[in-house]
Amino acid sequence: MSISSTYYPSEPTKPSVVTATVPGPRGHEALKQLSNTFDTRPAYFVADYDKSCGNYIVDVDGNTFLDLYAQIASIALGYNNPKLIQTLTTNEMKNALVNRAAIGNFPSKELNAVLTKLLKVAPKGQTHVWNGLSGADANELAFKAAFMYYMQKKRGGRDVPFTEEELTSVMENKTPGSPKLAVLSFKKAFHGRLFGSGSCTCSKPVHKLDFPTFDWPHAEYPYYQYPLEKYEEANRKEDDRCLKIVQDLITSWHIPVAALLIEPIQSEGGDNHASKYFLQKLRDITLKHDVVYIIDEVQTGVGATGKMWCHEYADIQPPVDLVTFSKKFQSAGYFFHNLDFIPNQPYRQFNTWCGDPARMIIAGAIGQEILDHDLLSLVNKTGDYLFSKLEDLQAKYPQYFDRLRGKGRGTFIAWDLPTSDLRNSLLQKLRLNGCNVGGCAERSVRLRPTLTFEPKHADIFVELLEKSVQEL
Amino acid sequence: MSISSTYYPSEPTKPSVVTATVPGPRGHEALKQLSNTFDTRPAYFVADYDKSCGNYIVDVDGNTFLDLYAQIASIALGYNNPKLIQTLTTNEMKNALVNRAAIGNFPSKELNAVLTKLLKVAPKGQTHVWNGLSGADANELAFKAAFMYYMQKKRGGRDVPFTEEELTSVMENKTPGSPKLAVLSFKKAFHGRLFGSGSCTCSKPVHKLDFPTFDWPHAEYPYYQYPLEKYEEANRKEDDRCLKIVQDLITSWHIPVAALLIEPIQSEGGDNHASKYFLQKLRDITLKHDVVYIIDEVQTGVGATGKMWCHEYADIQPPVDLVTFSKKFQSAGYFFHNLDFIPNQPYRQFNTWCGDPARMIIAGAIGQEILDHDLLSLVNKTGDYLFSKLEDLQAKYPQYFDRLRGKGRGTFIAWDLPTSDLRNSLLQKLRLNGCNVGGCAERSVRLRPTLTFEPKHADIFVELLEKSVQEL
Repeated sequence: MSISSTYYPSEPTKPSVVTATVPGPRGHEALKQLSNTFDTRPAYFVADYDKSCGNYIVDVDGNTFLDLYAQIASIALGYNNPKLIQTLTTNEMKNALVNRAAIGNFPSKELNAVLTKLLKVAPKGQTHVWNGLSGADANELAFKAAFMYYMQKKRGGRDVPFTEEELTSVMENKTPGSPKLAVLSFKKAFHGRLFGSGSCTCSKPVHKLDFPTFDWPHAEYPYYQYPLEKYEEANRKEDDRCLKIVQDLITSWHIPVAALLIEPIQSEGGDNHASKYFLQKLRDITLKHDVVYIIDEVQTGVGATGKMWCHEYADIQPPVDLVTFSKKFQSAGYFFHNLDFIPNQPYRQFNTWCGDPARMIIAGAIGQEILDHDLLSLVNKTGDYLFSKLEDLQAKYPQYFDRLRGKGRGTFIAWDLPTSDLRNSLLQKLRLNGCNVGGCAERSVRLRPTLTFEPKHADIFVELLEKSVQEL
Repeated sequence: MSISSTYYPSEPTKPSVVTATVPGPRGHEALKQLSNTFDTRPAYFVADYDKSCGNYIVDVDGNTFLDLYAQIASIALGYNNPKLIQTLTTNEMKNALVNRAAIGNFPSKELNAVLTKLLKVAPKGQTHVWNGLSGADANELAFKAAFMYYMQKKRGGRDVPFTEEELTSVMENKTPGSPKLAVLSFKKAFHGRLFGSGSCTCSKPVHKLDFPTFDWPHAEYPYYQYPLEKYEEANRKEDDRCLKIVQDLITSWHIPVAALLIEPIQSEGGDNHASKYFLQKLRDITLKHDVVYIIDEVQTGVGATGKMWCHEYADIQPPVDLVTFSKKFQSAGYFFHNLDFIPNQPYRQFNTWCGDPARMIIAGAIGQEILDHDLLSLVNKTGDYLFSKLEDLQAKYPQYFDRLRGKGRGTFIAWDLPTSDLRNSLLQKLRLNGCNVGGCAERSVRLRPTLTFEPKHADIFVELLEKSVQEL
């Protein structure tokens, strides 16, 4: 029995668009109402989540879309998953939602079980977790762990006390208590939009225009030629070019680089992949220069690439220091394995809620479903199938399928159109033909279906994609 | 019928501590287990939220505490409130939790109703809301709104396009695209622990040691003598002294001050109150110097002071620009009234989830309960009663009740002990006597009960407080 029929016996069998435009008349009316309380300019349509099911999202006009965007890569199992709905009836969810605890001070008797479940699917080598509330928050909490760790090493150990000068200067935002330290990230990266994470983000100006930022450096992320097997030598040279830039920035930047932050595949920035070689060499460099190595798995994590965590493909040794997550876990935080990343004093990594147990419960349930139904195998199977179909389309319409990428990376697939306009036009035609798909960077299409996306869904998508391409 | 019997017919009638220590043996065992996955050093005890009810929190040892800390001021209505539990059975909550939407792109058909409900209890003059995930997040989202607004004014209007230099420089974290701008906050303030909010926080070194910060200024927050009616002249002088510092910093700081951020009562920093005069004068100064005025109501908001929003006591005219909230709303975000705080382009104030609809639903339900049961009247009644009882204790034990404050501010009451050790000792004795109470700053006790705390609870607390004081 297929996974979608197990979970979603009444999942639609195909998309259906019944209005001439998306949104249609009811959607327009709903957006007009909503604009009284909300910024509706970025809205694609108004969804009816009661009617949405599995891999299909339904809007208030009664249109049914096959969803390959899945709430900006946030839906792991599909809409109205029965196992997730079951969590709502548990006492632990009732407590988490209604009796929202300050879990650092007043942890619940359930908390250990919730975290243990979540840790069952932690990246290899990572044994602990600290919870946050969004991808940006997860990254910033990881920065804090990195900064404390870096300064502790510099200070000479966990037990070395703060100096009087540190204790007073920090209250004025001055060194040495508030040291000048940097996080190195990469051009085209997206790590969030708060002030620390935003200083690491540089995929589009709109994310950060008019905001002050820290003077932190951006190295270059390798830009490969495809197919990879044809361009091995050129791509290795590209890796080495970028590694040299990383090395140079770490040794020459005017602020000490305490941490390096990287997405194993830059997602918002255009689905740029980093090779196993590149990610391992970064481990070597970070070890050499005492830089904390942070992998941002906010978009790549939780199964979409065919492994639970994308960077597991690189089998980095020794394991990276911190791994951040959010999106498909519908929760957020970072994993770590070195207990020195627990600060030497309590209340240094702390806040009122220390995460949201309601969301942690959902994350644990998602992880359990992935294990119970071996969804990673399904993602790999569907991904391989879908990729080969896209290669066929690429052969047929090479001008519309440039740099097809994501082979062997589950359903985490992307390609480029010649221009931004053509890409946007393709996404619009896809939507009118019943497929909800997202873009990234200037001219890329990114596929981000759920983990229950099957070959039968891929068939429907490929057919409507070809139809849409022909309409370009 | 009393509100607690309406909501909580089986609420305990008094506290009960059955173990010699808190935590007791079961609590110690639970903490030992939990320490495998979590930093348990800040834990007071392990709670059993199933057994907790109304104003009483129960731990795994079977101890029952009257709770005047309420999850660091986060529980509005009491534990296991039946009206909040009802929200779990609704379709809108099921959708919010299980089908977590990227509501900016794919808003639900329910969203407008959820936000409209939340806005029913917005501060006077504030008509719109933007949602975040925590108090720190709420403040940083408000900073972003302020920075965009400030630069838009400087640029000459909403329609003035970004320059090519802005668009390129921002990608390197350089001016002019990423301008040097500051938020002015106050000494002893607490606004969160992320990198922007953390730059505004300066109540304790432990919150921010080893983290880089922005070079933003801290003015002085007035420090009054009590009782207020006796020291009117001295306190007015204190206001004027601090106002001059604010004015001087705004005109002389080496980075332009785009926004001013203040708590109407500094909570973590010691329950320092600001007068109506002070808060109004800040409005005058911010208007004169084109500085955005942000009120942080994260701890003071949602009823505990006897008004829905504490700064409403000051009746600031014209209304402040942005008001941030979190904690007792169990959700987070900022209110605003000027549509120019909606950025000139979409996607400038944006992120994947744009808040958590599950938490917004809870916030709306809390607001509705406050209105339906006129809980503000109850807070004022209980607060006045409790304050007069504390005045009696102050007269009896003046050495342990210094600077009793919060008269006429509902149950938002605090006082000072002579030393940090004595304060800590009092809190410990209170816990062993069955009252869960928190401290703030170095030597203050802060009371933060729920909005369903009644005179009968105040009687129990005062009795056990006197007992604890006698044990000092």
